[in-house]
Amino acid sequence: MSVALDPTVEGIEALLRGIALVLKKRGRDILADFDVTPPQFEALLTLREYGLLTMGELCQKLYLACSTATDLVDRMERNGLIQRERDTLDRRVIRLKATPEGERVMDQVLEARLKYLAVVIEDMSPEQLRHLAESLQALRQRMSTEAETSS
Amino acid sequence: MSVALDPTVEGIEALLRGIALVLKKRGRDILADFDVTPPQFEALLTLREYGLLTMGELCQKLYLACSTATDLVDRMERNGLIQRERDTLDRRVIRLKATPEGERVMDQVLEARLKYLAVVIEDMSPEQLRHLAESLQALRQRMSTEAETSS
Repeated sequence: MSVALDPTVEGIEALLRGIALVLKKRGRDILADFDVTPPQFEALLTLREYGLLTMGELCQKLYLACSTATDLVDRMERNGLIQRERDTLDRRVIRLKATPEGERVMDQVLEARLKYLAVVIEDMSPEQLRHLAESLQALRQRMSTEAETSS
Repeated sequence: MSVALDPTVEGIEALLRGIALVLKKRGRDILADFDVTPPQFEALLTLREYGLLTMGELCQKLYLACSTATDLVDRMERNGLIQRERDTLDRRVIRLKATPEGERVMDQVLEARLKYLAVVIEDMSPEQLRHLAESLQALRQRMSTEAETSS
């Protein structure tokens, strides 16, 4: 079924939302293969992005109540994905980090996502790929510009 | 700063990930304006997508432990975003739904997202908008095809 092209804000927003939804569902399927839930993967990515975090910092970054984030981290510690470590400067402070296994799971999930995208776009011509990259880049750059001017 | 175009799978994946990240951060800013957290908004969208859900169904859809989802729903009930309702057929079953206020918040958040995108793409030429919509649509259609053949 071919859909009429709608190059308006509404049309483009619907396309972006549709793509984001498929990527999210696909992402969940991939995570299920690795026995990781979306909130757990979010916690791992957050630790990768920000480095060692205290529980207070992690619950803030995840927008979760600290009791919820503690449950999540306890479970992930039991599953060998996260470890607790004493701060080297202040031994009273406990920091969280991904274990080597947690890092490995993240890498494999990201690799599986790349493979999925490769399958999706495998029949695009070099010209279509160039147009897609150009369009996404134009959108990305405008988003950066907007972020700079609005902050 | 202009970035060299990279129309490979890796380049396109990086662009999609970058766009998704900006949309997520922006989405969080918008939610903060409405005093709603991302997990709360996710719960509202899930109730909109699936209709009346029991707590057990909701925690499954949100990939949260039921104790966590219960905390979330209790807080949202206190904030007037969600209400509990007895099932009309089986009075022992309690179902969750968004309140009119919850619906209003969702509409306003989605409207604010649309406005944000309108600002981002406002200086694109009609031709650029057409290319963007075409590229996104090509990607979206291939994702649907992949979903059909892989399931």
